[in-house]
Amino acid sequence: MATTGPEDFPARVTVREVGPRDGFQNEPESIPTSDKVRLIDALARTGLTRVEVGSFVRADVIPQLADGAEVLAGIAIPDGVDVAVLVPNQRGWEAALPHKDRFDEVIVFLSASETHNVKNINRPVADSLATVESLLGQVRDAGIRPLASIATSFGCPYEGHVDPKRVYELAGRMAAAGAEEISFGDTTGMANPRQVRTFYEEALERLPGVELTAHFHNTRGSALANALAALEAGVTSFESSFGELGGCPVPPGSTGNIATEDLISMLHEMGVDTGVDLAKLLDASRDVQRVLGRPLGSHVLTAGPVEWADE
Amino acid sequence: MATTGPEDFPARVTVREVGPRDGFQNEPESIPTSDKVRLIDALARTGLTRVEVGSFVRADVIPQLADGAEVLAGIAIPDGVDVAVLVPNQRGWEAALPHKDRFDEVIVFLSASETHNVKNINRPVADSLATVESLLGQVRDAGIRPLASIATSFGCPYEGHVDPKRVYELAGRMAAAGAEEISFGDTTGMANPRQVRTFYEEALERLPGVELTAHFHNTRGSALANALAALEAGVTSFESSFGELGGCPVPPGSTGNIATEDLISMLHEMGVDTGVDLAKLLDASRDVQRVLGRPLGSHVLTAGPVEWADE
Repeated sequence: MATTGPEDFPARVTVREVGPRDGFQNEPESIPTSDKVRLIDALARTGLTRVEVGSFVRADVIPQLADGAEVLAGIAIPDGVDVAVLVPNQRGWEAALPHKDRFDEVIVFLSASETHNVKNINRPVADSLATVESLLGQVRDAGIRPLASIATSFGCPYEGHVDPKRVYELAGRMAAAGAEEISFGDTTGMANPRQVRTFYEEALERLPGVELTAHFHNTRGSALANALAALEAGVTSFESSFGELGGCPVPPGSTGNIATEDLISMLHEMGVDTGVDLAKLLDASRDVQRVLGRPLGSHVLTAGPVEWADE
Repeated sequence: MATTGPEDFPARVTVREVGPRDGFQNEPESIPTSDKVRLIDALARTGLTRVEVGSFVRADVIPQLADGAEVLAGIAIPDGVDVAVLVPNQRGWEAALPHKDRFDEVIVFLSASETHNVKNINRPVADSLATVESLLGQVRDAGIRPLASIATSFGCPYEGHVDPKRVYELAGRMAAAGAEEISFGDTTGMANPRQVRTFYEEALERLPGVELTAHFHNTRGSALANALAALEAGVTSFESSFGELGGCPVPPGSTGNIATEDLISMLHEMGVDTGVDLAKLLDASRDVQRVLGRPLGSHVLTAGPVEWADE
């Protein structure tokens, strides 16, 4: 096992903003397309280099994201910012394909837990894996960067512990099918830092050449501690959501994804660069807070950034 | 610099509950003494071995804690649980002394930052240090365990960076004067994990034989990440507040101390024992939430503990 100390933290990491997809899809009130476009355009001008902007899911399944094509047509993304869309199945990919000049990355997904996969997408994991493998190849062949996401990688609310070996096997299959990046999701905030560090240290050994991404939820308040543990394990790619939007609304009242501004703030204070202008990011979070009309869970949005009076 | 890995986490750490003092003193509405007594009695039956129950400050300065003697007289603390009271000055110590059979530990304090010390207790640090040194000797001579607390150890909202060497020097003086334990406070949530790890690694080298305690605030959401960094540095003593009560209300709207239940949950999930029954602790947090009549900031109180379906 590696024994990483503070002297070994990377100089820079990459953060993918997932709020416009993972965050918005949990919002009960319809968000106008024009608001989505303005918010995404703002996020893409904060210095973030990766933004997940929407999904090609069936409109009757997630009405909030039914305007995926309109959002893609409306946004104006600067050079150097990669746009990702989520695609759940073959039908979704076929809906996305006509718009492929407007995105750079496609995310496909499944759950490591059989029960969670069935409850979430009504199919056994083996079926989902076959679809995902097929999609990854098609995405690659279309010249788009293929990404994969594995939900409940650190625990399942229905099944309990998830064997890391099962997660690595799924990830290996996805990598073999073309995934250039794999994100491991702590879907209901069950992970702890000891587990996270061990998980990623072994994952980085087992999956050379694949970018491994950390996606934590703040359900029990430990998302940043888990991010620290991932960083110590050697992870340099993270996903987060501005304002702490989204995430799995189980248990009820729970907070969601790690807040992008809280993650960025901690990383910058540690001397780990992200390229993000925190003040601009907070402007976008204040805007989405106004759009949604309720106080959001992000700590830095409430308290403001750390200000060093002597700097 | 040490290179602690997950394999080196301690089997057990100690947590001091500070809510009944550090939490309550920030509550604008008077909390009835009977509620305080019931809550402290409940906390002392969760497995926590250290509880800070009140303060001997002037009633006109902090009216909320004016019933310190009545609280001490009312509580029934099991064997093995150490009761701490805060004493700000000679007058406070003289007020506490007649009740010394009812507490085990006295906490004295100052700020590492000159400006914060003046704003908080209206005296230069040198004057506070002289008082603290005198008090520590008197406390020890009375057969009570003398503790010291250093506010703004990781940064000051008025002065900015605080030189760790200054903090170590103050701590060394306090240790020489009799402090058996020194708590370093991140009073306004400015610390980051890299800083915390380096700070405690060096502190543990410089202050052998003194118990060094970590006291973090969740102002920017990173309290548990900072706790993890302290743990990695070798710290085995923590302070926290049930329900996430208290802490410095600057900036306005900020969250306070690290929540005891969030800290305990993370530690237990990591396999680090605290002796605390999390379910009993959550009962106490629900009780104080009811007493205060507003939702508290603790994540585990909202989401519930991690439940492993297969255990």
